[in-house]
Amino acid sequence: MTYCVGLKTDQGLVFMSDTRTNAGLDNISTFSKMRTWEVPGERVMVLLSAGNLATTQAVTSILDERSKAPDERNPSLLDTPSMFQTARLIGSVVKEVIRDAAPAGQTADAFAASFILGGQIKGGEPRLFYIYPEGNFIESSADTPFFQVGEHKYGKPILIRAYDPSMSFEDAIKLLLVSFDSTLKSNLSVGLPLDMQIYESGSLRLGPSRRFERDDPYYLAISEGWSEALKAAFHRLPPFK
Amino acid sequence: MTYCVGLKTDQGLVFMSDTRTNAGLDNISTFSKMRTWEVPGERVMVLLSAGNLATTQAVTSILDERSKAPDERNPSLLDTPSMFQTARLIGSVVKEVIRDAAPAGQTADAFAASFILGGQIKGGEPRLFYIYPEGNFIESSADTPFFQVGEHKYGKPILIRAYDPSMSFEDAIKLLLVSFDSTLKSNLSVGLPLDMQIYESGSLRLGPSRRFERDDPYYLAISEGWSEALKAAFHRLPPFK
Repeated sequence: MTYCVGLKTDQGLVFMSDTRTNAGLDNISTFSKMRTWEVPGERVMVLLSAGNLATTQAVTSILDERSKAPDERNPSLLDTPSMFQTARLIGSVVKEVIRDAAPAGQTADAFAASFILGGQIKGGEPRLFYIYPEGNFIESSADTPFFQVGEHKYGKPILIRAYDPSMSFEDAIKLLLVSFDSTLKSNLSVGLPLDMQIYESGSLRLGPSRRFERDDPYYLAISEGWSEALKAAFHRLPPFK
Repeated sequence: MTYCVGLKTDQGLVFMSDTRTNAGLDNISTFSKMRTWEVPGERVMVLLSAGNLATTQAVTSILDERSKAPDERNPSLLDTPSMFQTARLIGSVVKEVIRDAAPAGQTADAFAASFILGGQIKGGEPRLFYIYPEGNFIESSADTPFFQVGEHKYGKPILIRAYDPSMSFEDAIKLLLVSFDSTLKSNLSVGLPLDMQIYESGSLRLGPSRRFERDDPYYLAISEGWSEALKAAFHRLPPFK
C-alpha cells in the first residue's frame, strides 16, 4: 500500500508521499514514490505513484529515458506543450506498461497503478491531475482541490475539514502531516520517511523539498500535538444529555 | 455498507449503528442493524450486524424464534449459561445461514455478515465479542476495547485517540457521534438515522437508547461543532518552518 496526496492552493501545489512498499507483511522496502522533472524557468513536473512497484518504476524509467533521448515517435516530458498534453503522454505510457505486463488474455489488475501529476509549463497555469491505470485522467477543481492515491480513507476527514484554498504552504504541510499521521497510525503498509515537495505558482522552479524521517522533530511535534489537540477539541464539544 | 461500533468502558457497554442498507447506489433502504434481548435482572444482549441483509435478518429471526420456542436441540439465546456460550450459539447460526445460502460448490462470500455481540448474564461480567462470518469470534480486551464492523476506516482515528476506559457514557456517545459523523461525511452508503444503546455494568437491564434523526439537535451540534473544533485544533499545532 501507499499514501500520496497532491494538493492545490492559491499559492501553488504541495505534494507528499510515503515510502513504504510491501509484497506481504514480512517483505517491506523503502522506495520514494515521488519523481520530479524541472527545466528552470520553463517547466516543473511532479509525479506521485501508487500501485504495483514494477509498473510505477517502468513508467518513470520510460519517461526518464525519453526525456534524455527524445525522438519524433516518442515525445518527451520535457517537450509537451501543456500540462494537459503531459497528462496524456503519461497516461499513454501507463496504459502501455500495464497492458504489456499482463499475460495474454488475462486481466491486468495485479499490475495496476495510479498517479498524481502536478506542475506548470510556461504560458499555462499550475495544474493537478489524477491518472488512472486505464491511462485516462481527471483534473482538480475548486470543488476537489486535492487528490489522494493509495490508502486514502483514514487521512481524508481532516483534509476535507481543514483545507482552505487560501492556506499558506506552511499550513498545507502541517495539514498533510496530520493526514499522513492518522494513516500511519492505522495502516502498517504506509510508512515513514515521508517526502514533501512544494511548487510555488508561476515560479517555474521546484520549491523547497524535505524528507521527514522517523525522528524528525517537526513530525514528532505534529504527531504528539495532534493527539492532544484532538482530545482537547473533543472535550470542548457540548456534552450529551 | 454499514457502520456499527460496540465499545466497552469501565461503566459498561455503548453501541451505535447506522441504518442504511443498499443494493446499488440507487437502491437504498433504512433498516435497523441493532437487535436487543433482555430478561430484566437476568440477562441483556445487544447484537449489531453488517453484511448481507438477508443473512443478518435470517440470523436474528432464527435467534428470535428460538428464544420464543426453545427446544433441546436448538438452545435459545435466553438460556445460555454465559456470554461466551451466547457468542458460540450465534456463531453457529451465522455459519449455518451463510452456508445454506451459497449455491452448491460455490463460495459464500456474497452472503457474508459480521456481528458485534455485547451484554451480560447474571453471575458473569459484561463482555463484548466480534463474530466472523465463519462463526468463530474474538473478545474485546483492555488493549482493544472496541469493535467496528462495516466502513471502519474513516471513523477509526478519533476512536483510537479519544477513547479512555474511564470515560462517562455521555462522553462515549459524544465520541461515537464524532466517529459516525466522519464516516457519514465520506461514505454515502452509511446513513442516518443512528441507533444508540447503553448498557450499564451489573444493571442486567437495557439502559437508555435513542435514535438520532437527521435533524437531531445534539447530532447537528456535534457535526457542526466538530468541524470548527478540528479547525481550531489544527491552528493550534506548531507551524512548519
